[in-house]
Amino acid sequence: MDDASQQGLFGALFSRGAADTSDEAWLAAMLTTEAALARAAERAGLAPPGAGAAVTAAATVDFFDANKIGRAAVTIGNPVSALVKDLTALVPPEYASAIHLAATSQDIIDTAAMLLAKRAITTIQADLAEAASASEALTRTHARTVMAGRTLLQQAVPITFGLMTASWLTAIDEARRQLHQAQDGLAIQYGGAAGTLAPLGDQGPAVAELLAEELGLATPILPWHTDRSRILHLAAALATTCATLGKIARDITLLAQSEVAEVHEGSPAGHGGSSTMPQKRNPVVAIIILGNTKQAPALLCSVAAAAEQELQRAAGAWHAEWQPLSHLLQITGSAAAWSAELLAGLVVDPARMRANLDASGGLLMAEHVTTLLTPAMERLQAHELVAAASARAVDSGMDLADALCSDEQSAAKLAAAQFNRDQLEAALLPESYLGATPVFIQRALAAHEALDL
Amino acid sequence: MDDASQQGLFGALFSRGAADTSDEAWLAAMLTTEAALARAAERAGLAPPGAGAAVTAAATVDFFDANKIGRAAVTIGNPVSALVKDLTALVPPEYASAIHLAATSQDIIDTAAMLLAKRAITTIQADLAEAASASEALTRTHARTVMAGRTLLQQAVPITFGLMTASWLTAIDEARRQLHQAQDGLAIQYGGAAGTLAPLGDQGPAVAELLAEELGLATPILPWHTDRSRILHLAAALATTCATLGKIARDITLLAQSEVAEVHEGSPAGHGGSSTMPQKRNPVVAIIILGNTKQAPALLCSVAAAAEQELQRAAGAWHAEWQPLSHLLQITGSAAAWSAELLAGLVVDPARMRANLDASGGLLMAEHVTTLLTPAMERLQAHELVAAASARAVDSGMDLADALCSDEQSAAKLAAAQFNRDQLEAALLPESYLGATPVFIQRALAAHEALDL
Amino acid sequence: MDDASQQGLFGALFSRGAADTSDEAWLAAMLTTEAALARAAERAGLAPPGAGAAVTAAATVDFFDANKIGRAAVTIGNPVSALVKDLTALVPPEYASAIHLAATSQDIIDTAAMLLAKRAITTIQADLAEAASASEALTRTHARTVMAGRTLLQQAVPITFGLMTASWLTAIDEARRQLHQAQDGLAIQYGGAAGTLAPLGDQGPAVAELLAEELGLATPILPWHTDRSRILHLAAALATTCATLGKIARDITLLAQSEVAEVHEGSPAGHGGSSTMPQKRNPVVAIIILGNTKQAPALLCSVAAAAEQELQRAAGAWHAEWQPLSHLLQITGSAAAWSAELLAGLVVDPARMRANLDASGGLLMAEHVTTLLTPAMERLQAHELVAAASARAVDSGMDLADALCSDEQSAAKLAAAQFNRDQLEAALLPESYLGATPVFIQRALAAHEALDL
Amino acid sequence: MDDASQQGLFGALFSRGAADTSDEAWLAAMLTTEAALARAAERAGLAPPGAGAAVTAAATVDFFDANKIGRAAVTIGNPVSALVKDLTALVPPEYASAIHLAATSQDIIDTAAMLLAKRAITTIQADLAEAASASEALTRTHARTVMAGRTLLQQAVPITFGLMTASWLTAIDEARRQLHQAQDGLAIQYGGAAGTLAPLGDQGPAVAELLAEELGLATPILPWHTDRSRILHLAAALATTCATLGKIARDITLLAQSEVAEVHEGSPAGHGGSSTMPQKRNPVVAIIILGNTKQAPALLCSVAAAAEQELQRAAGAWHAEWQPLSHLLQITGSAAAWSAELLAGLVVDPARMRANLDASGGLLMAEHVTTLLTPAMERLQAHELVAAASARAVDSGMDLADALCSDEQSAAKLAAAQFNRDQLEAALLPESYLGATPVFIQRALAAHEALDL
Repeated sequence: MDDASQQGLFGALFSRGAADTSDEAWLAAMLTTEAALARAAERAGLAPPGAGAAVTAAATVDFFDANKIGRAAVTIGNPVSALVKDLTALVPPEYASAIHLAATSQDIIDTAAMLLAKRAITTIQADLAEAASASEALTRTHARTVMAGRTLLQQAVPITFGLMTASWLTAIDEARRQLHQAQDGLAIQYGGAAGTLAPLGDQGPAVAELLAEELGLATPILPWHTDRSRILHLAAALATTCATLGKIARDITLLAQSEVAEVHEGSPAGHGGSSTMPQKRNPVVAIIILGNTKQAPALLCSVAAAAEQELQRAAGAWHAEWQPLSHLLQITGSAAAWSAELLAGLVVDPARMRANLDASGGLLMAEHVTTLLTPAMERLQAHELVAAASARAVDSGMDLADALCSDEQSAAKLAAAQFNRDQLEAALLPESYLGATPVFIQRALAAHEALDL
Repeated sequence: MDDASQQGLFGALFSRGAADTSDEAWLAAMLTTEAALARAAERAGLAPPGAGAAVTAAATVDFFDANKIGRAAVTIGNPVSALVKDLTALVPPEYASAIHLAATSQDIIDTAAMLLAKRAITTIQADLAEAASASEALTRTHARTVMAGRTLLQQAVPITFGLMTASWLTAIDEARRQLHQAQDGLAIQYGGAAGTLAPLGDQGPAVAELLAEELGLATPILPWHTDRSRILHLAAALATTCATLGKIARDITLLAQSEVAEVHEGSPAGHGGSSTMPQKRNPVVAIIILGNTKQAPALLCSVAAAAEQELQRAAGAWHAEWQPLSHLLQITGSAAAWSAELLAGLVVDPARMRANLDASGGLLMAEHVTTLLTPAMERLQAHELVAAASARAVDSGMDLADALCSDEQSAAKLAAAQFNRDQLEAALLPESYLGATPVFIQRALAAHEALDL
Repeated sequence: MDDASQQGLFGALFSRGAADTSDEAWLAAMLTTEAALARAAERAGLAPPGAGAAVTAAATVDFFDANKIGRAAVTIGNPVSALVKDLTALVPPEYASAIHLAATSQDIIDTAAMLLAKRAITTIQADLAEAASASEALTRTHARTVMAGRTLLQQAVPITFGLMTASWLTAIDEARRQLHQAQDGLAIQYGGAAGTLAPLGDQGPAVAELLAEELGLATPILPWHTDRSRILHLAAALATTCATLGKIARDITLLAQSEVAEVHEGSPAGHGGSSTMPQKRNPVVAIIILGNTKQAPALLCSVAAAAEQELQRAAGAWHAEWQPLSHLLQITGSAAAWSAELLAGLVVDPARMRANLDASGGLLMAEHVTTLLTPAMERLQAHELVAAASARAVDSGMDLADALCSDEQSAAKLAAAQFNRDQLEAALLPESYLGATPVFIQRALAAHEALDL
Repeated sequence: MDDASQQGLFGALFSRGAADTSDEAWLAAMLTTEAALARAAERAGLAPPGAGAAVTAAATVDFFDANKIGRAAVTIGNPVSALVKDLTALVPPEYASAIHLAATSQDIIDTAAMLLAKRAITTIQADLAEAASASEALTRTHARTVMAGRTLLQQAVPITFGLMTASWLTAIDEARRQLHQAQDGLAIQYGGAAGTLAPLGDQGPAVAELLAEELGLATPILPWHTDRSRILHLAAALATTCATLGKIARDITLLAQSEVAEVHEGSPAGHGGSSTMPQKRNPVVAIIILGNTKQAPALLCSVAAAAEQELQRAAGAWHAEWQPLSHLLQITGSAAAWSAELLAGLVVDPARMRANLDASGGLLMAEHVTTLLTPAMERLQAHELVAAASARAVDSGMDLADALCSDEQSAAKLAAAQFNRDQLEAALLPESYLGATPVFIQRALAAHEALDL
């Protein structure tokens, strides 16, 4: 909790996780890019031996004054030329030719963005793996823990809590798969002023290859300066991750409501309590997650809108992409870190789940009773019988079994269908009406185990 | 140009292409889903022989009154129950049990959305394939057509038009790849009221498998009702497509400007002209494309924001997804169809490209001269020599060769570096400073040929 | 429920209300604009007597084929020139000069948009006035109906339902105020090809004035073709309306949850019920409202992004604005109409509100007890005493009164503070801890009465 | 250029202007709120004399460790309780009761946001006033500077540069008006746990009034915790400002293109140049402005989406609003500051404007010639005559006068219409075809002078 990305009043909420996109991280990534380019230049024979090492040694964040570079950034609209100037001053003149070889400022910023994204995804993946493991454990533990399935915020038919968490698990794994794919696509941008690497004559592609190797990034088909598909693909994977984590957090805030109380957060002491309102068990971590994830759709939109980049470098759209992309990486990282903690510590109350289910007096099982009566009577008749009983139950407060049996006509029909009270009671057990729940849970667990990133 | 999706004042602009998401298309897709479910039920032994065929026969758009169903939709918040009621009335009673078996309205709407998306992508892919072929042809034809590379809307260094179109081609192919992947992921949604398929006991997964088979969609790990990753993945692929097509269209509007005039649209007569302003050659098709693609980022945002779907069915977020997704499919389809036409008909003016390049009097080649002088003099000296001459050229209107040679000091230095006027003239030819352009073009063409969807 | 805007499967959900922005409505608005311009031309002496009437007579929707005009729209990228051509064919030649006088297609489309917006706002305002009246009535009826205030989805301290509806009322009235202001700003756009009205010499402003008068729209300072502030202002007022209606609908879905059940929808029979799940009381209308309002933020974004319109007519951004603006008007209209119905029919269950409040055994009143004890003991002491009792209450299931009195130490301290059981019981009554609730309600009602639009 | 908001690599680009929303500014605003509340408490007689001053003295940013408070923020999901704890420790115990009186953390954060917004708008307004003055000066200077009006990026008919800047001026003034209105609406939020101010009994409204007075903010009708209309109104005014500034910046990047070159930036030396590409005059400031303004639509969307805040405090949506609102204030401030500089320094090249206009050989005046011929011949005939000549001019490269006169038939018709070469030449002068340009300019200047904020 001490790194640069978590400074300040809001850092712990919105910049948790190691998805560091602070100005310092950007500076470091730009220097890493310049250093790698110098080494590539040397390896390609375009700079004297030792140039790579000399530039790499000089390309150390501590040697640079970000504020000064930032102020100078206004002369070209980005900080690269000021950074290159300061870097050059730190390197013996004989190696200066290795610096920024044939590059344009967009090459450095775009490649640095790829490095930041690569590192961020690595840490996000670690947090998501934890969140998935926690979901898996919840699924195994609660595979048979019955609760009310809720549609449109109304109790519908029974499910198990393990089925819900299996669905979370599947969605988290899908996010991991998409992030993995996006990470694979991260490639250097290296094209020079207009994408031809003209100053390198016919050696451009070779230097590009070496640069990619130095940085552990892919080599693109051709410079991608104004083809932002790669950035949009990345942003979409991040937003998908946020969508999934936000859905889980929203579920938890709803299940944690005072009147539902089926789960609560098990985070370290102090979380969520209120000294003046002792009854509150605020789902603080879930709320923080939502505070992050709800920002993602608009950030994705911003990145997508900025993708209309004209000709060989966009006048504005490119610049408008840096902050939303940085912010999206950061909040996704924060949401992932908090989600790992949330899911690992989630406290589940099976008794309360059962009690909430029972509160409807069996009405959630009406569909089941109808189904069971169908062989013995016409479907429509069965439906009408149960619907009438349900109506009586809602009006009178009786449970469904009583409503079905206490009415004479109704009782007669049940008897005619040879459906006795015991059968009825059995039909009203939520456990008896879970359908494919165990199969779906098994499949989700198997798919999780098979996930190989 | 006559189908339902292109009706009305604006249909030809925004609903071109066969990505039909009109209400009629939705109705047809829902009926297709119900019919397939009935056939699956029969195949699974859960409905009498003949039920599948009977329901399929009844599930014909012409038998249904969309307006009536739409009015009834308000009772549950979606049109499915009214549709099921009307469908049931069209089927002999003995087959009624096959209808809507164990399904909930979300199953039908979500699966119908997948069908609409699948068909839309198929047509979008065909249009994109045409657009890619046209880009390929332009790339081959103009591989060596020099023009000014433009960064920040300023002439920078030379490129070729074929390099620009190679970049378009690569981006279009990436969009095709992403759409292909998204299409592969389209899966049925079939879970019943809360995702358990409870009324089917343990037969749910088997029926689901048959339903997927009937519809040519994938079977998901488990019902995905409130896991919208799949929808978001689809929307992202569509928005990426729009981003690429919008970038190309924006490039064309800029190259077609009165003062640039390097390309114009070659669409059917009448397009783009103005009877009262005869000098205008409005890039109408490119503008229509932008009128479509600029809507995509916000629609993607809407779909992403709607992905926070609570518990087992969202109260509102689900409903808020239908229109943005439909609209996104439609505008992407329209943009793709228009782009195929635009690129196939694009008229290129190499002479004007050359003239615009020459208008700078060689200043675009200043970097090249500096590079060539470097072995013979210090890099910094070379830079200063050329920069001074460039300044004189800008001030005086001379071209760069004259500015370098007409100044005594400057001429002396060139002579000392054994750099004669012929060499200078050669260095100032744009063709001499294209760097990796041919390699990048070759790579883009090779990648295009290798694309196997 | 029969007009054009509510056709199809989804019209009743998303196009309810009379905010008609169908293609037919656009066509009518364009014809209205052309007719008004002809009358203005005649009044200005720029067209022969009778021209205005002749063009007005011809400018009848039924005489035009929207599909045909739509197909022709592709030649210039919008339907105006085709419409003008067809209109001209319907008017005696001697009056033809009155048609489209000095106008450009953007003049017609932008002015038509203003007309559509003006009409839409008028109907939205009527629906919002109904919604406000219903909120006012709820506020008066339930000014003293205590319920749990809920923060972060947890019961916090008591409020009254009337206070909640007073807050709804204030927000609805603010939306009405903003819409009123936006409507006031709606102005004709009339500038000709590039905003100079050059063909009219010095008579442009006079014709513009007459045109505005004919249409009941404002005259702008100067043509606003690429200044979209007005459109953005309009869109913001619509999105604010949606935000408020969405918040109210979200509140209702939450209060209607099975486990909360404090309100339910009182809409016409059949709404919200489920024949197979009889216990469900789906808040269908609130859900439909959310299905509309959740689309608004992205549509607003789309309109705002489209506001960067270059030079004298934007190549794409203008075209990209029509659909989002139309759709935003439509969903706002639909949300407003549904909200009027929702609020007018809302069924409130004060007993359940009370029961939910009581379920915490007085813990919601802990803050109150602390406050009351403060004069007699140190604030910190009071706090600790109540906090300890609250903890015991949470652990044991006792209510707070018992928890405070059953513990010896605690009882002694209460006695020392001369705080007896009766005082305690009184302090635990929610009615005793409502603070400024009545004042705030009075203010909201007074502000509502004072609202003069 | 030294304040906290402009630190780092990107601060000078995106955080210029004094719209400070850094964490430090937030901390200061929260402390200001707490101090004002203590003074209000004292004035209301709810805290001992001296409490207000004591708390105010302690509420000094330097006494607080933002990182520590930030880390503690996770226990409740926001930094307020940690801040209150630290503040309390700095105040003599006898005054502690004045701290955070009856307040909830949302009261402090929302009110602090209002303070930040108020200050930000004040500085934005100052920058916009400068931008407006510069636009006014350009308008006066260039009222008659003819240039090509450009629609769809094609030369259309003549305008003057002063007309374009008059349109900018009007839009800037509209933004100022909207910001002024939004600022007027900024109000304290003070409602306690659930909006009742229960701990204050009936004294809540009085304390609220005093708090508003202390802070110079308005008193709302009732606490607005989950009514975010005010925030959305603010965000919309900011986004409108960005839309206008972005439109102007986009215009300038287009007019500054190498091939157009009608304006360039006159910013301090060094801006926009490229040492290796001497011909470039990058419109750096305009690009930076666009880098800011293009982020606004999505941030507005984020704020609008976050406005669906449930019940008495939203679980997530509230938290998701802080960063987008902060960022929107910041980029609007930055865009405004840069725009003031851009417009004040803009260098205009009337000769180049004229040359670009002349390049069409009079074709832009075709509409004018047709208009002038109309009294003497049928409109359609005039049109055909000019259209044919225009076509010949386009094909042959002749100017329009020659094309009209060199063709025998054409010349005969002109003669018959008594339209001689001198009249023709006069008709082809752009100055003769400016219509209402001077009137519109006068109106814009008059409206600017009348603006009284």
